[in-house]
Formats: sequence, structure tokens, C-alpha cells
Amino acid sequence: MGTLERMRLVAERIAQAKRQGHRLVVVVSAMGDTTDDLIDKAKELHDDPPAREMDMLLTTGEQVSVALLAMALHRIGEDAVSLTGWQAGIRTDGTHGKARILDIAPRRILDELDKGRIVVVAGFQGWTESGEITTLGRGGSDTTAVALAAAIKADLCEIYTDVDGVYSTDPRVVRNARKLPAITYDEMLELAHLGAAVLHPRAVEYAKQYNVRLVVRSSFTWNEGTLVQEAAEMEQGIVVRGIAYDKNVARISIAGVDDVPGVLARVFGALAADGIDVDIIVQSGVKDGKADFSFTVAASDRPRAMKVIEGIRNVVPYREASYEEGLVKVSIVGAGMVSNPGVAAKMFETIAAQGVNIKMVSTSEIKVSCVIDNEKYQDVVRALHTAFGLDTAETAYVGGPAERR
Amino acid sequence: MGTLERMRLVAERIAQAKRQGHRLVVVVSAMGDTTDDLIDKAKELHDDPPAREMDMLLTTGEQVSVALLAMALHRIGEDAVSLTGWQAGIRTDGTHGKARILDIAPRRILDELDKGRIVVVAGFQGWTESGEITTLGRGGSDTTAVALAAAIKADLCEIYTDVDGVYSTDPRVVRNARKLPAITYDEMLELAHLGAAVLHPRAVEYAKQYNVRLVVRSSFTWNEGTLVQEAAEMEQGIVVRGIAYDKNVARISIAGVDDVPGVLARVFGALAADGIDVDIIVQSGVKDGKADFSFTVAASDRPRAMKVIEGIRNVVPYREASYEEGLVKVSIVGAGMVSNPGVAAKMFETIAAQGVNIKMVSTSEIKVSCVIDNEKYQDVVRALHTAFGLDTAETAYVGGPAERR
Repeated sequence: MGTLERMRLVAERIAQAKRQGHRLVVVVSAMGDTTDDLIDKAKELHDDPPAREMDMLLTTGEQVSVALLAMALHRIGEDAVSLTGWQAGIRTDGTHGKARILDIAPRRILDELDKGRIVVVAGFQGWTESGEITTLGRGGSDTTAVALAAAIKADLCEIYTDVDGVYSTDPRVVRNARKLPAITYDEMLELAHLGAAVLHPRAVEYAKQYNVRLVVRSSFTWNEGTLVQEAAEMEQGIVVRGIAYDKNVARISIAGVDDVPGVLARVFGALAADGIDVDIIVQSGVKDGKADFSFTVAASDRPRAMKVIEGIRNVVPYREASYEEGLVKVSIVGAGMVSNPGVAAKMFETIAAQGVNIKMVSTSEIKVSCVIDNEKYQDVVRALHTAFGLDTAETAYVGGPAERR
Repeated sequence: MGTLERMRLVAERIAQAKRQGHRLVVVVSAMGDTTDDLIDKAKELHDDPPAREMDMLLTTGEQVSVALLAMALHRIGEDAVSLTGWQAGIRTDGTHGKARILDIAPRRILDELDKGRIVVVAGFQGWTESGEITTLGRGGSDTTAVALAAAIKADLCEIYTDVDGVYSTDPRVVRNARKLPAITYDEMLELAHLGAAVLHPRAVEYAKQYNVRLVVRSSFTWNEGTLVQEAAEMEQGIVVRGIAYDKNVARISIAGVDDVPGVLARVFGALAADGIDVDIIVQSGVKDGKADFSFTVAASDRPRAMKVIEGIRNVVPYREASYEEGLVKVSIVGAGMVSNPGVAAKMFETIAAQGVNIKMVSTSEIKVSCVIDNEKYQDVVRALHTAFGLDTAETAYVGGPAERR
């Protein structure tokens, strides 16, 4: 939700869907800078405000949005009713700031739908059994929408973003990247984690768990979006669905560590305790009772991670710790690769043909990731896009989507 | 609640009261222009927004305040918890925009107090049995405070305003007006209705009904305020407690009306239907089967009132309708005048001695009001202040209070 003008456009769009005969529940986030403004106010009063009071404060942002959107709908002749998280029956645990939805009691929503009303629900918030107001944390509004869709057994959950769907890769890098008509939950999860921040992973996980049919589409255009669904419902024969990359990668290497049990646990336990997410971990062969290993972290976490590694040297002795920056992780994602053993090999060949060295590799059932140097990553992404047949567009790509905030 | 700076000062003050050993429930209104800003947004989207959605919107203002005040209290080492109207158990009827409190379930508040916490409650709001959010309308925060004080059987309910108490009359008119140490509920009600807008009449009525001891005091000074309580607990012997005036008075006169039953009902029914409050009504003697009568309305309502009167001429025939503006209603108020029959006469004499004509008179058990010309009303107020012994101050008056917003 941006400005009031945008609120009016959204209301028009909702009204059109209503007039097509749909029963509609709309989940709304806070307007424009509202949340940031509230956070600023809180920080002026307390450098580390209690999480419970932050939730009390921030949930007003969505409450303002739902009330205003309901008004905008009334203005154009639609009967609408706004609901807070607790009014919508969204019950969560008590972890303020990042609560998890426990269950949804949809009676009130269903009653309002039965009255022919459009129901406008505040995203990002819920309440606990003891009557506390909570927020769901990052991706909260997407998660609210998916969870509500599951609770009321909706036919479809449309997520409106500022991109018009999920692409085979970043259109800013590959000119003939194409919008995917459909993608599986697992593929979407891999792409979400890999930085294609169209949908929050939590929302996708929830959708997968409750089998909610999701569509990602743009709130600025009427283009068809991308359907996210079960693998079983997908067309077969596509091995690689999309290519993602992450430019924010640093590699840390530790050489000459005693090869005794518990060493890795101690190292990665210390990093986790400092809130540092480790992605790929590679251990090389043991020589003279000493092992070498390396791992990747977000480039922004690298200085802190190095401090942690230096700090544990008395507990975990090693010969040398070093790091490398300016790395990129390139990944191919596709549910079909489970049954196609040659996929990884084809990826390595394609990268090699670009004259690029692979520094680390990581695989899952539906993904292969390679860490490479930054310089030629765009060539690599383009080459992979061609090699896995993604250039042959069903729908030609026109124009690039904006980046998601 | 003004700015964040003011929020910090209020928190300091609350913390001091807490350190004196008090168990505290604090009721807070919205900050500065918050409510007006929200109303402006609503009006941009809908010229007549649904009252339910307005309540949804406006209650966020107080929710922001309570969360921020709780944070400011935490910052200075006090354990505080903020509660919305529904969390505080304030149940109302369903009249959105001006709901009435039905009852308060104080369990949550009492539990928090037992934990040693300061409880910060959002004023002006409640919820209905069916889970709707409501607002109490004008004077709502005062009313919330009084109602909560009654529900938790508080020893005292302090109302913080920007004046430091109730005065014997307007200090801008009478230099030696003095702050009253105490006043009865009924006297306060008369003064409240008469424009001394320190406390909203609804809050005073509620306090009287549940016998809540009220203190009106300034949030800017540490001066003692004015105690509002039962007449039985007051010092005896004071006949007139205070003098109020209202400069916003117009008189409408209707001459030559048929003296038949139901005429007055028709006239004042038509005015009420148009939302016009009528104050004093005077009917003069009947002559030749025709009656004259006159009444006062707020000067700002006069044009509409005249239109109503002209509009009903075919139903209620009359010879002539006229009006007079620039009038002032001066009132003396005091619970002691019930047993002092000479009070009204003394008031008339005092006004006459100023060479001022009395145009209308209205009396109640504890009040006499006279409508006079605007020109010399200040002399009249001063003369009455002296005549009824109000100049002899227990506490000398120093400086004038600001006007209440």
C-alpha cells in the first residue's frame, strides 16, 4: 500500500474482481513509510524497545490501511468490512516480532463473506491465546494471505507484488528471460532463498504445507502471473525451471584444523550464536591428521565471521584462516532434475566453456549451486539459460520488472 | 499527549508517582495532530466514511500513544504494559463514534498491577460483545479514566489537563479568580456545561454515578488541583462556588403563536430534528389567544434555527419571528444555593447595579443563569465574583491558565 491514490486504484481492482462474482478476502500491509516512521519514533524513546510494545505499535500501520481501504471500497459502492488480525481469528504463538501462526478461526470472515461483503484483513499480525497482539515478522503479509487462504479453503491466493511473476532468470542479465507460467512450491522455495525475493519463503512453505494454489502477479498490470503449485500438476519434461544468482557471497577458509570429532560443530555453533548464517560448507581431504574446510557467508557478515573464527582459535586450533570476496553463487533450479543425472555435469561443462573456474559446489534434489568469481557471472547465467533451453520462450519477455522492496 | 519530548516528561512524572508506592493505571489519548491527520485521510477517500471504519481508523491513534509511553517508561527502568480498549476489558454498546461503556472486566488490569507493572490504557475506545472496535466520542479519554477508576475501585482518579484546576471564574476576566480546592459533582457538571471545558460532562456524570473521587490538575506543574467529590464531603457555608459565562448566545423570539396544546412540541421537535440544541426557553403571558415565546441557541446555530422556524410557519402559524445576537449567558453555580432563597435576588440586584438589563432567566437547584447584552459582561462577572465573596482567596491566583484544546 503506497499513497491514498494507490489505495483508490487497489479498491477499483478489487471491485472489478467482486463484480465478476468472486467472494473476496483481501490482505493488506501498511502504507508507504508508515512502519519505518513508527520504528523511528520508538527508537527515539528507547534504543531497544520491548518487542511486545513494538508489536503494539507497528500493528497500527496495517489497521490504518484496512480501515482506509474499506472506506475506499464503500466510496465506490462495495460493501466492505475491515478486520484486525485478532478479529480475523489469526492465533499465533507469543514470540513478539516474529510470531508463528498456530491456527485460524475463520468464522467471522466466513460470516462476513456470507453477507456478501468484501473482507479486508490486516496482514502481518495476530493475537495469542492470552490476548496479546503479535506480529509475524518478515514476509508476514504474504504469510497471512496464504494462511487465510488455507483456513477458508480459498480456490486461489493471489499475491500482488511490483513484479508481474516469476522469471526464468533475472531479466536485467538475460534479455530473453521469460516469465514462467507455473512453478512448483519447492522450486519457488529454492528461488526465494536464492534471492529472487518475489515471495517470502515462509509464505511458500505454508502454501506447500496446506496445498494453497498461489499466483504471483503485478498490482500495476493485468498480465497473467506465475502459478505456484504441486509438482504433480505441472507439465512434465522441463528439467531446469530457472536460474538464480547471489552476488553477496564471501568464502572463508580454515586450513590445518585437527581432524577430531566435534570440530565443525564448535566452529559453526560459534557462528550461529553470533547470528551468522552459513550457506555452503565444503571439507577437503584429511592429510597428516589435519583437515582444511571452507564455507560461504553473506559478504556483509564476513568481517564478523572472521572475528568469530579468530576468537575461537584457542578452542579450535588451526594453521591459517583466510577469506575471499567478490564471489557469486549461481544456481539452477528444477524439480525435474531428480530424474536427470546429467544435469550437474552439463552445468559444470557450460561454466567451464565460459573459461570460469568453479570454487565450490552444493547440490540438493532440485538444485545445483556453483560459487564462481564475480567478473563473468553474467556470461555464465546467460550461457546456462541457453544451455538448459530456457531461451525458447512461450511468452516473449517485454521490459524488465522492478526490484521488490 | 503532544510530542515525544512531552511523552518523556509524562513518563518521568508517572515514574515518580510509582516510586511513591502507588499502583498506577494511566489512560492516554492520541498524540498531537494524529486524530486530525487520520480524519483528513479518511475524508480524502470518502466524504462520509462509515462510522465503523472511522472507529477502526481512529483507535490506532491511542494505540500508538500507549505503546510509545510504555517504551518511555521501560527506558527509565519502570515495568509497564500497554493495553488497547479491548485488552483492558472496556465493553461498550455498538454505537460507533459515540459508544457508551456498558461494563469493564478489569481482570487483565488487576493481574498486571499485581505483577507490579504500570498499566497504560488507550483512552477513548472499547469493544462490543461481537468483537467490534468502538470509540466513545467526545470526552472519551476522561470517561475511560473515570470508568476504569470505578471498575478497579481506585482511591483517586487524576485528570491531567493544561489548566491546573477549576477556577471560581475565568481568570482572564477576573484577576483575583481563585482555584477551587474542591467542588461537587453537580457543580462541576453545571460548570462543564457552561463552557468551563476542563472536564467533559460525561466523565463527571460517570464519576458521580460511581462515586469516583476526581482531581483535575495540570500536567505542566506540580500545583494541587481541584478535587471533585460528593456534596456531603464538602465544607459547608459556601453558597456560590463559581461563575461561568457563555458568549456564544443568540436569542430567537416568536410572537403571536396560537396558544393551543402541542405548539411548543412542534417547534422544538423540528429544531431537535435538525440537531440544534436549545438552551433557555421563556414563554410570556397569553393575550387574545396568542402567545409569545423566545429561546436561546448557540450563535453559530442561529441561521439554521431561523430557517427551521420559517420552514414550519405553515404548520405553526405565527405573526413574527426575530432574533438577537451578541448576547452572553452569565451563571452562578453552587450546591449551597438550594437552602439559600435570596441568591437569585442578589444576582439580579448585582447585575442591575451595573446598569445592565436582564433579558432572560433560567434556574436550577444549584444554578441561576441570566442572559444579558455582550457589552458589559466582564463588569457583571467581576461584580458577581465580589458580591458572592469569591474574591477572598485561600490561595492567591498567580498567572492565567491556558485554554483547553
